[in-house]
Amino acid sequence: MKDKISIVGAGLVGSLLAVILKQKGFDVQVFEKRKDPRKSDVAEGRSINLALSNRGIRPLKMAGVYETIEPFLIPMKGRMMHAVDGELTFQPYGKEGQFINSVSRAQLNELLIESAEKSGVEVHFDHKCTNVDFEKSTLTFQNGSTIQSDLIVGTDGAFSEIRKKLQLTDRFNFSQHYIEHGYKELAIEPVNNKFLMEPNYLHIWPRGNFMLIALPNNDKTFTCTLFFPFEGNPSFSQLNTKKEVDDFFDKYFKDAKALIPDLTDQFFSNPTSSLITTKCDPWFKNSTILLGDAAHAIVPFYGQGMNSGFEDVRLFIELAEEMDWNWEQILPKYSSSRKKDADAISELALHNFIEMRDHVGDPDFLRRKEIESKIQAKYPKEWIPLYSMVTFSDIPYSEALRLGKIQKKIMDEILNQETEINLEKIIERFNTLKKAY
Amino acid sequence: MKDKISIVGAGLVGSLLAVILKQKGFDVQVFEKRKDPRKSDVAEGRSINLALSNRGIRPLKMAGVYETIEPFLIPMKGRMMHAVDGELTFQPYGKEGQFINSVSRAQLNELLIESAEKSGVEVHFDHKCTNVDFEKSTLTFQNGSTIQSDLIVGTDGAFSEIRKKLQLTDRFNFSQHYIEHGYKELAIEPVNNKFLMEPNYLHIWPRGNFMLIALPNNDKTFTCTLFFPFEGNPSFSQLNTKKEVDDFFDKYFKDAKALIPDLTDQFFSNPTSSLITTKCDPWFKNSTILLGDAAHAIVPFYGQGMNSGFEDVRLFIELAEEMDWNWEQILPKYSSSRKKDADAISELALHNFIEMRDHVGDPDFLRRKEIESKIQAKYPKEWIPLYSMVTFSDIPYSEALRLGKIQKKIMDEILNQETEINLEKIIERFNTLKKAY
Repeated sequence: MKDKISIVGAGLVGSLLAVILKQKGFDVQVFEKRKDPRKSDVAEGRSINLALSNRGIRPLKMAGVYETIEPFLIPMKGRMMHAVDGELTFQPYGKEGQFINSVSRAQLNELLIESAEKSGVEVHFDHKCTNVDFEKSTLTFQNGSTIQSDLIVGTDGAFSEIRKKLQLTDRFNFSQHYIEHGYKELAIEPVNNKFLMEPNYLHIWPRGNFMLIALPNNDKTFTCTLFFPFEGNPSFSQLNTKKEVDDFFDKYFKDAKALIPDLTDQFFSNPTSSLITTKCDPWFKNSTILLGDAAHAIVPFYGQGMNSGFEDVRLFIELAEEMDWNWEQILPKYSSSRKKDADAISELALHNFIEMRDHVGDPDFLRRKEIESKIQAKYPKEWIPLYSMVTFSDIPYSEALRLGKIQKKIMDEILNQETEINLEKIIERFNTLKKAY
Repeated sequence: MKDKISIVGAGLVGSLLAVILKQKGFDVQVFEKRKDPRKSDVAEGRSINLALSNRGIRPLKMAGVYETIEPFLIPMKGRMMHAVDGELTFQPYGKEGQFINSVSRAQLNELLIESAEKSGVEVHFDHKCTNVDFEKSTLTFQNGSTIQSDLIVGTDGAFSEIRKKLQLTDRFNFSQHYIEHGYKELAIEPVNNKFLMEPNYLHIWPRGNFMLIALPNNDKTFTCTLFFPFEGNPSFSQLNTKKEVDDFFDKYFKDAKALIPDLTDQFFSNPTSSLITTKCDPWFKNSTILLGDAAHAIVPFYGQGMNSGFEDVRLFIELAEEMDWNWEQILPKYSSSRKKDADAISELALHNFIEMRDHVGDPDFLRRKEIESKIQAKYPKEWIPLYSMVTFSDIPYSEALRLGKIQKKIMDEILNQETEINLEKIIERFNTLKKAY
């Protein structure tokens, strides 16, 4: 078992995959176009933080690296909603004891690269891949070097070079779609080394067609992200002067604004970025395969981008083990079996944006949550709310999506009827519909 | 009015656009990656023939080139359906005197290039575009030369290089999708310089999930095209030996097989090609715009690929004239107003494959056609059948699609009811629904 495996992209998914494949005994090399992030003076780009949850944690444990990472996590027990008047409402994400974890992308990535190198993986930075020969299974890099491998894995993200080469092959389906909203990050700095808001929550300012969120960081800052349309009223295109920005935040995010003294400076110096969804099919060609964002980039609104990528790694490894590392059989099998789940989380993520920005503050929404938690309390195994299926379980995303649609149908029925709520009847109806759809 | 215009791609759409823009007084250059087709020994690739109809003819007349082209056209009055037992059924495409025109892509292209050069356009062959700088409005070619222009038009087809560059810019939406079917061309040669079937029809062998069609050529050949799944039963993947091909044609296309003595030779020497749909949005960036297949490649089943591309040219020119050749305003306006029509014909083309391969032989389908022609006969202005709106009118594709859906709804209602058909009531209902949807 000394197959030579080349991984393109030393991001989160690539580094984690490298650790595990090395442990399984393969000859693993990773090629990364950027410089070694541990040696760069400035952390590249923005201080993105992510929400690590169950589907991401399991593969980290599988790789034996979770213990190294755990100290860097900040638990978030639920949503802390900020109304326009500053009133706060708490909504737990799941049951008592369930939470998601804010983690810095940069920190996590460095820890994973470190782990890969410790387990003996060669990580080659400054190696921009310029060509893939799918027939010969070779990679060529900008420096002119070429490497032949038994397996090539593209984990090079939403703008994957490997995928761009796949796109030139016959019968490769592909789509990239940008939503109408962009985002801009703003920092809430600590005062006297203290967080300026409660740290163990995901803070959210839902405002209909747009929203602000904030996640805590280890350095006691919060990273706020404004998700906002590029065009229209209001939109980024209308915020061109300091006064316009000030007025806008005064109107919609007064409490957050009070915590960001240099708001307008940050607003005009930080970039406005776009949000892409990509889909492709198939994910493989001969002995090359895509994993993570390279195969299925999604919008961030379910907090599942990294988690789904890590789950890709677990499922790929488990399938490979089951099929005795026969790549020729594994690649098509993995690609066809995982595709529907990637499509499902893509849909869920787009939909959750509407929920987060528009519905979470709704009385109707809150009533649904309340009824659901009653059903769940009585039937904890039968009825798992959609958010929990996605975030705290391993139920395939496509199955979560399916069950979530049935749950929505039932909740619509309940809210439309006058009679008292009968939990027993509800779960009966759920079990019937589960079989029917 | 001496703006410098560079057109990338001397195919059908690019050449026609060049003719018209030159006539309008612009300084027009065309860059084509292939060699001059008039000088190549062998006509490049396959003998594809196309069906020229109203939307394509109008722009050719606008350019004053239709008279040159007309002698090369072969009118096709309708579908000639071949049943498995060889029985023939005729279905007219429209009213008496309406027809579509079989024309050779290669011939038409040469005539248009000829016209462009005659009107003073410089056509540069062997000029592969390798880069576009959207900011500077420059094109760079493989030979190292660079050209700056006031307007750049990408008419370089379904695999457009200009579009590939656009795809790398932020917020450019794009999709490419291949259908499950591929196609293979086969020729029916004349005997004693005579067509072996009636020439003035589009011959069609509908067989459910697949079909064979044949269009007449000027040299008295027919080009047959088999549209057939790549995988499954039956499919291309199952036709690997001469016997398998022979048996397959014996079973499904016995009468056609009798006209192709070298069938298996052709089958194994001609390529199997795939069928792509591409969509993108927006079609422009600064002073660069896409027209024709580069903007919206569609499957060939409505015979509208070339026609929609030529219509692009007419609409683009008409709008530009109306907006006084102010490209900065024209490009966004054209792109946003034409997009819905491109999406509509894309959908119609995919749907018409199912109609052609599966429905045209159906008694139910024939009955619908019969009823529709009665309605049309009585109300020729109110009720134009969908095929006629697409093929014989200038009604925007999106409007044709919309009206077609209403017509289908009404036809479904009629076929489900027991009572006698009342044309007056039908047209009343149509007019009501037209306003409602």
